[in-house]
Amino acid sequence: MSTAAPTASTRIVLAARPHGEPTASDFRTETVELPPPGPGEALLRTRYLSLDPYMRGRMSDAPSYAPPVAIGQPMVGATVSEVIDGNDTGLAPGQLVLGQAGWQTASVERADHLRQLDPAVVPPTTALGVLGMPGFTAWAGLRNIGRPKRGETVVVAAATGPVGSVVAQLARAWGCRVVAIAGGPQKCAWLDEHGITALDHRAPDLAGRLAAATPDGIDIYFENVGGAVFEAVLPRFNPFARMPVCGLVSSYNATELPAGPDKTMVFLGSVLRKSLTVRGFIQTEFVDQEPEFLAEVTPLVADGQIAYLEDIVDGLDHAVEAFRGLLVGKNRGKLIIKVS
Amino acid sequence: MSTAAPTASTRIVLAARPHGEPTASDFRTETVELPPPGPGEALLRTRYLSLDPYMRGRMSDAPSYAPPVAIGQPMVGATVSEVIDGNDTGLAPGQLVLGQAGWQTASVERADHLRQLDPAVVPPTTALGVLGMPGFTAWAGLRNIGRPKRGETVVVAAATGPVGSVVAQLARAWGCRVVAIAGGPQKCAWLDEHGITALDHRAPDLAGRLAAATPDGIDIYFENVGGAVFEAVLPRFNPFARMPVCGLVSSYNATELPAGPDKTMVFLGSVLRKSLTVRGFIQTEFVDQEPEFLAEVTPLVADGQIAYLEDIVDGLDHAVEAFRGLLVGKNRGKLIIKVS
Repeated sequence: MSTAAPTASTRIVLAARPHGEPTASDFRTETVELPPPGPGEALLRTRYLSLDPYMRGRMSDAPSYAPPVAIGQPMVGATVSEVIDGNDTGLAPGQLVLGQAGWQTASVERADHLRQLDPAVVPPTTALGVLGMPGFTAWAGLRNIGRPKRGETVVVAAATGPVGSVVAQLARAWGCRVVAIAGGPQKCAWLDEHGITALDHRAPDLAGRLAAATPDGIDIYFENVGGAVFEAVLPRFNPFARMPVCGLVSSYNATELPAGPDKTMVFLGSVLRKSLTVRGFIQTEFVDQEPEFLAEVTPLVADGQIAYLEDIVDGLDHAVEAFRGLLVGKNRGKLIIKVS
Repeated sequence: MSTAAPTASTRIVLAARPHGEPTASDFRTETVELPPPGPGEALLRTRYLSLDPYMRGRMSDAPSYAPPVAIGQPMVGATVSEVIDGNDTGLAPGQLVLGQAGWQTASVERADHLRQLDPAVVPPTTALGVLGMPGFTAWAGLRNIGRPKRGETVVVAAATGPVGSVVAQLARAWGCRVVAIAGGPQKCAWLDEHGITALDHRAPDLAGRLAAATPDGIDIYFENVGGAVFEAVLPRFNPFARMPVCGLVSSYNATELPAGPDKTMVFLGSVLRKSLTVRGFIQTEFVDQEPEFLAEVTPLVADGQIAYLEDIVDGLDHAVEAFRGLLVGKNRGKLIIKVS
């Protein structure tokens, strides 16, 4: 695959903090010399870069659970890389690994932070999506916070994405009725093909269609988008329903708050009257459970019981444009940049 | 105490569903003949009637966790009554009992729904407040949802009321730093006297004073009021903070939503970034724990370790006026009507 060992890395750095939707001028491409790998480090060439909505938060300096990317530093991100020089770490040249190289073409990383991937079991890109952080977010949030019981109704949005699609298929595997929400007929068709009831949030009267599709109410709403989908879900909650919150993509680019009235107390009123549980989480909270997740879900992915969609975009120079599309739902599935 | 057995009950019935603040014309006083007690029933004379914010919900036919009071039916409510005729149920005349007679002067009730009270241990009115539904709400919500750890910071509003005052004092007994919020200098003085840090939400800059009083952030906010106090608390939450929601008194009389912008997604954004747990509850969910609550808290009340305030208003004919005041914070402590 690779020939000469890279001595430089081309990378995309954050040039300015975006106001609203990120634009090309918020980023800069530069090439830096790579240091030789030190003890315990390996030299890697990036094969695939994951693009995820959480990265919008890292571009901002608003308080959050993780510090922002500093201006002038490369954007962070999960990567599938190929080992070029294992440097006595036990990693063989050509070995594929999951790491955190960020938006760049090559990197030097600590070997003990890398997970070795076996392309004979599942395609290595799955380590960025269905079997990576997004899939684990789905599994951990559904299991620990959603706590589904057989026969309950689970609703999830962005349902062809790497979180939503795993929530939908796991909930079905665990015996729940699933209603999946996605934007546009193409995404809904993919869900239909996989036997999942789908609602297009871009078509009229989502609230009415959601009510019709949830005759027994909603027991779990896995929140990853917020906004209009949240508003349609709220009146359908059953008593003691659970709402894991792992993302609010619809508001990540917002520069001002939605117009009034202020409906915060309407929401809290539902929380009160229906004894709802609303719980935000970051998957790192449950990191101890990751081996269990991989043991359960890897075979389901390998034998096709859990399907997944990937949008693979060729070339790091398209990362900014692709990321812009991610925040407005242009991608259908897991968004991945093929770097080399 | 009593002389002739009552053969009639004077009662306050709901005449119309209030729009906004309840008014006198939403109620009607009538006198009805009482049936003789049937098998397993006792004839009771009402001594004390509890007035609680949840009753505003029962006056409305908006969907809630309990059905509304029907038009023409007596308002519901917890009562301390005196047994007039035990009717072979084992209840002796003169025995004080906790029941649910509602807003009326006498009643016939099922004996197995009554709890016998011993005025030698604690004053019987405590069964309506600190040792009744409000106190149990505080104990159950704090214990099961708040899950306080020693050294954590707990904030509660309406803190001289029967829920808030028990939350504040239990949290202190369980090793937490407590900040109590109340309306007006008199209520704050009562809290100060009992060694509880108090903030007056009617004085300027609640947010600034709350920040100063919670230097380590807020780990538990016991929500019973909503509105401006909630807004001041939100920025102070620590990661993994818990917010039991048992009431939203500030919005119970609202006839329209607050002006915009809509800050619902700001709230959900905090839930997400800080991994907050927001959980509505009604104390009946934890009813199995009531004996444990009484066993723990009764001695604390009996020996003064948990103090309580009562506002006792004389005469059922003042119930509507007193209830109107309850929703706007006119009472200082547990609001009780002395019926006879």
